[in-house]
Amino acid sequence: MNRIDQANAEALARMNRAEPVLVDIKYAGEVAPELDERTIGHAGPPIRWEDMCGPMKGAVMGAAVYEGMAQTLEEAAEKVQTGAIRLVSNHSLGCVGPMTGMITRSMPLWEVKNETFGNYAYSTFNEGLGKVMRFGANGPEVLERLKWMETVLAPHLKKAIAHAGPIPLKVIMAKALAMGDEMHQRNIAASALIAQELIPPLVHVTEDRAALERMTTFMIGNVQFFLNLAMAAAKATMDPVKNIPHCSVVTAMSRNGTNFGIKISALGDEWFEAPVLMPKGLYFPGYSEKDANPDMGDSAIMETLGVGGFSMAAAPAVIRFVGAASAGEALEYSREMQEITVGTSESYVIPIMDFVGTASGIDIRKVVETGILPVINTGMAHKEPGVGQVGAGIVKAPMDCFIKALYAFAHAEGVD
Amino acid sequence: MNRIDQANAEALARMNRAEPVLVDIKYAGEVAPELDERTIGHAGPPIRWEDMCGPMKGAVMGAAVYEGMAQTLEEAAEKVQTGAIRLVSNHSLGCVGPMTGMITRSMPLWEVKNETFGNYAYSTFNEGLGKVMRFGANGPEVLERLKWMETVLAPHLKKAIAHAGPIPLKVIMAKALAMGDEMHQRNIAASALIAQELIPPLVHVTEDRAALERMTTFMIGNVQFFLNLAMAAAKATMDPVKNIPHCSVVTAMSRNGTNFGIKISALGDEWFEAPVLMPKGLYFPGYSEKDANPDMGDSAIMETLGVGGFSMAAAPAVIRFVGAASAGEALEYSREMQEITVGTSESYVIPIMDFVGTASGIDIRKVVETGILPVINTGMAHKEPGVGQVGAGIVKAPMDCFIKALYAFAHAEGVD
Repeated sequence: MNRIDQANAEALARMNRAEPVLVDIKYAGEVAPELDERTIGHAGPPIRWEDMCGPMKGAVMGAAVYEGMAQTLEEAAEKVQTGAIRLVSNHSLGCVGPMTGMITRSMPLWEVKNETFGNYAYSTFNEGLGKVMRFGANGPEVLERLKWMETVLAPHLKKAIAHAGPIPLKVIMAKALAMGDEMHQRNIAASALIAQELIPPLVHVTEDRAALERMTTFMIGNVQFFLNLAMAAAKATMDPVKNIPHCSVVTAMSRNGTNFGIKISALGDEWFEAPVLMPKGLYFPGYSEKDANPDMGDSAIMETLGVGGFSMAAAPAVIRFVGAASAGEALEYSREMQEITVGTSESYVIPIMDFVGTASGIDIRKVVETGILPVINTGMAHKEPGVGQVGAGIVKAPMDCFIKALYAFAHAEGVD
Repeated sequence: MNRIDQANAEALARMNRAEPVLVDIKYAGEVAPELDERTIGHAGPPIRWEDMCGPMKGAVMGAAVYEGMAQTLEEAAEKVQTGAIRLVSNHSLGCVGPMTGMITRSMPLWEVKNETFGNYAYSTFNEGLGKVMRFGANGPEVLERLKWMETVLAPHLKKAIAHAGPIPLKVIMAKALAMGDEMHQRNIAASALIAQELIPPLVHVTEDRAALERMTTFMIGNVQFFLNLAMAAAKATMDPVKNIPHCSVVTAMSRNGTNFGIKISALGDEWFEAPVLMPKGLYFPGYSEKDANPDMGDSAIMETLGVGGFSMAAAPAVIRFVGAASAGEALEYSREMQEITVGTSESYVIPIMDFVGTASGIDIRKVVETGILPVINTGMAHKEPGVGQVGAGIVKAPMDCFIKALYAFAHAEGVD
């Protein structure tokens, strides 16, 4: 085994040893001081306002109004253009958010600790489906919901977690894979399981019955409620894989709606980028491919972990939602991903494949050698600001990210 | 198509058209007047006390004490022997209960209406796992839990259902099959889904927060909570299939721990019986095959509907729990059951088999012709009274039931 293979084996071992646990809820300003009264976090690698796509711009404007940085969406846009409002990549803050991934200082975040390595990762709360900020919507109902999440849901959930104690997420994710979730576009089971963990303590700590009813209804009505928690768990799992010398394993994949970026272990926090591709999938009634924005969000951290598109075989019911043809095609995706990874997961297994682990630890060498690209299940946002979700589909990570990363890796290894 | 095939096609059509809906909660004495202050309902075809197995006797004694028919278990046994306490088959009351299936007048029942045909079916509440009456346990904690279900859980759930309105069960069952349940030994997803339906209205109608916390914790902590509801839905679905002239489809399969009984459509409520077989499966730590009672319970109504063992391919995670070897074996069971049924379900499909319906409408002619027996996933009770569950496994319906039914059917058809 050469030094690269040894380093990659260490990466997979760290992934397998990870123990992501939900420990608390914090406000973004508490955990990421860089998120001050004029700074907004966004999904994907760093990007300038003028390069942002429509839904990302729409979300930035909405987030600025939500946070009180501007009174109107127009004022928000002006302030970003003049530099009065700053933009920062979530990953650099230890955070992740799906789609546009907006994070501002007043937003509550799930705090997930990797008990094995002691590191923390954070994600926003999931807003539900339809017109929501993560898909670029920014109307009054979007901001009202975010404010309710900040002022009612978060403080009660914080108390509930304090009452219940830390909630291990690995077991929930493993159970959900046996219940038809793939953990990216389908989190129905995981959302039910985390609601089951949270509701009894929430009942215990909540005196206001009307608040309790809205909170339980909100959590139960949101089939993607768990996605953001899964993303924080995935980031908490992948961060200790960073900076292993000679390691060619991908530690993050993320998209800002314009560019797709990856990080690899040996090269720390350097992004290797290429233009995002357009997902292929199914559109909600009234929308078509010409309405859709290309691939976006920090949520590809799920595929970085080895679930989502990688575990599609576990979720036959998601197949039609993302536009795949048959259960056989889903099995094929899950098998094919094994060709570009270091190995398979000990924790996340696919029962229908006789409990084989999901393909884990994407090796950029294998991606470039085989030409097989990581497959990602994703939501699709409308390309105009303020509209929201228009469908869901399957997209590939662009090859150029891996080629650029491999050149840089080879150079660092002295073999170019 | 001959008259039998036509009748059987009608049976399958009625199964497909069924719309089982949870409409209310009633006490057993209200809906089954035969359950008076000295009568106990039990699972399976009718049986005398002296022929009952250990766990069924244990449950009868416990039920008698719970209902106040006797002060002690010993007194209860005496009163049954002398005829002061009477025994009656649940199916004759329009009810079903898993394992021992005890029903007495004070017990709350789920009321399920088949909206298409207007008929009702009832089942008890699931008590959870471990030491519970359905597995023959009868200690003080068993009776205390039943009393709490009667006096706290049931009245609140009744109010919650009245507030929420009727809850369609078919969609929950169909969803659960896409979430890794087979609906007999694994109801994790369905239990989560029904809890999600019931909890928000329960929050709305419950003033006592301590009661609310115990109720939510109880529902959420019981991964088989939905089983009994599924059984009532299955009975409500199968009852309109009864009494179709020339129809050789099985409308009920049930076991009293001593005998296995089936009913077929053309012959109404006549039971065709044979001794129950011993399940093969996995035992909880400390138990082995020599501790187990043979097959028991009304829950084979699930396989009568075409789920449970018939839909094992939908539930790869249950495979190991019931002792099957591999995911491939589960697929094989689900495919094999198609050989003994009229067709496949339009409502209950198996995503991993490319959304084929589960095998539905067991035709006794095909069972006898092929020698393929219905496969049933089942829990296993300790053979002594008062102990409880010792494992779970797979069991076959005994061939003699089908041979006896086929003789009687042939005679009725004038072809013997």
